[in-house]
Amino acid sequence: MTRTVYVNGDYLPETEAKVSIFDRAFLMADGVYEVTSVLGGKLIDFDGHIKRLERSLNELDMPKPEAFDDLLDIHRKLVEINEIDEGMIYLQVTRGAASDRDFVFPDPEEVKPTVVLFTQNKPGLADSPAAKTGIKVISIEDVRWGRRDIKTTQLLYPSMGKMMAKKAGCDDAWMVEDGFVTEGTSNNAYFIKGNKIVTRALSTDILHGITRAAVLRFAREAQMEVEERNFTIEEAQGADEAFITSASTFVMPVVEIDGKAIGEGVPGTRAARLREIYLDESRKAAI
Amino acid sequence: MTRTVYVNGDYLPETEAKVSIFDRAFLMADGVYEVTSVLGGKLIDFDGHIKRLERSLNELDMPKPEAFDDLLDIHRKLVEINEIDEGMIYLQVTRGAASDRDFVFPDPEEVKPTVVLFTQNKPGLADSPAAKTGIKVISIEDVRWGRRDIKTTQLLYPSMGKMMAKKAGCDDAWMVEDGFVTEGTSNNAYFIKGNKIVTRALSTDILHGITRAAVLRFAREAQMEVEERNFTIEEAQGADEAFITSASTFVMPVVEIDGKAIGEGVPGTRAARLREIYLDESRKAAI
Repeated sequence: MTRTVYVNGDYLPETEAKVSIFDRAFLMADGVYEVTSVLGGKLIDFDGHIKRLERSLNELDMPKPEAFDDLLDIHRKLVEINEIDEGMIYLQVTRGAASDRDFVFPDPEEVKPTVVLFTQNKPGLADSPAAKTGIKVISIEDVRWGRRDIKTTQLLYPSMGKMMAKKAGCDDAWMVEDGFVTEGTSNNAYFIKGNKIVTRALSTDILHGITRAAVLRFAREAQMEVEERNFTIEEAQGADEAFITSASTFVMPVVEIDGKAIGEGVPGTRAARLREIYLDESRKAAI
Repeated sequence: MTRTVYVNGDYLPETEAKVSIFDRAFLMADGVYEVTSVLGGKLIDFDGHIKRLERSLNELDMPKPEAFDDLLDIHRKLVEINEIDEGMIYLQVTRGAASDRDFVFPDPEEVKPTVVLFTQNKPGLADSPAAKTGIKVISIEDVRWGRRDIKTTQLLYPSMGKMMAKKAGCDDAWMVEDGFVTEGTSNNAYFIKGNKIVTRALSTDILHGITRAAVLRFAREAQMEVEERNFTIEEAQGADEAFITSASTFVMPVVEIDGKAIGEGVPGTRAARLREIYLDESRKAAI
């Protein structure tokens, strides 16, 4: 089935979905994005994603696209047309295509933002086999730019990190800066020791995960202690459990870091429980 | 006049020049580029740019496009069609458009690189008025990723830096990391004190400028001393002269850094002489 995607007001077959070579995301990575999960045909944490999108736009002085207020409708229409029961919707906003390449931002009166959305059909997303086996991660140096709180398309290094993990026979990479874990290539990183969940505090060093916020809230409600602070790979290796969160993996157990098994080397019960709570609550709140 | 641009083997009007929304440069900044200047209808330092392009591709495990060996012909054809006497040719290679968005690199057997080239007509480029008045720069923190030796399209921060300079009534920004100047937003940075030119040494921290290499060679041939080492904004402010180099600005005098006039606050004679030598020699060697 050919996907129908959204490009600047048009619903098009994916094969015809194109942008100008002068689009600033193509030439200069001048774009921001969000990924919203779909469960049971409904959107998970939609408001959180749109709020973060608005923050990303503001941080970059990027104009809000005219379609901003229609984003919910566009998401829903794409879910319907593409018959998505479980999957993701990717949304990207760029500063648009100026008449020529220039480091100087184009006049927002003349150049309108580019808006692109497409679905990714992932039947069985919530019931992922990986959640039962857990994933293995390696650690790599974090050499990304300094504003990781802005969700830009500058994803080359995370992509390289995923390849390094793959070459090492693992699933993902945790990035380390000045000796401390920042986050995974496309997810936030956690470990559990006793009744305590530890994850890096919010700053410009990491993405302010929408799933992160929800999971930490659910953890506190479940009487777990949450400590937001720097931690090392060694500390995580010595933990009882480890896991990641992201919009598309929800809560995903990590069973190995740099070849060292975490706890018993199998998914921990607390991470499994958090995943269950997150999925239950998210389904209830889905729109 | 509508430019004719090159996209994956086709010569198209710029208005029809498009790439898939799944192109990895659009979604993930997974692209590299080069800018070659044109003087008298001929290409400046073409071999150096192609050699650096090849290095960028290698560093990122990005396949060499089929058109790689035809790049000289494509450059020349674009110069001819668009009647460029003075200007630039922009060349971008991306990892191509996979069938879906994925952090994992696509199989190079299935997904071919995207190749895009376009001209920028700049009559009077060599005789730029800015070279007579000099430019003013501000200093900003360097928060780019760690592999600036690879010429990727991750240019959002340099673009933001240019905007910060503009807002401060200046022309460009020099980036500072751990107290030392790395480079300008799209150029290498230098100062001259006595008979000595100082510029940061090559590493992963800065772009290995093609113009930088040529200018340092000409400087040595002109019996100037060249010192490649770290330097601070304060040291540059206390210099006799300062300048930048890039493929499109050649050698451009800097007359003010963070509001402090350099030397007499006018373009220095040595930078002017280096510009002259560079332009003369480059014209002679142009192809």
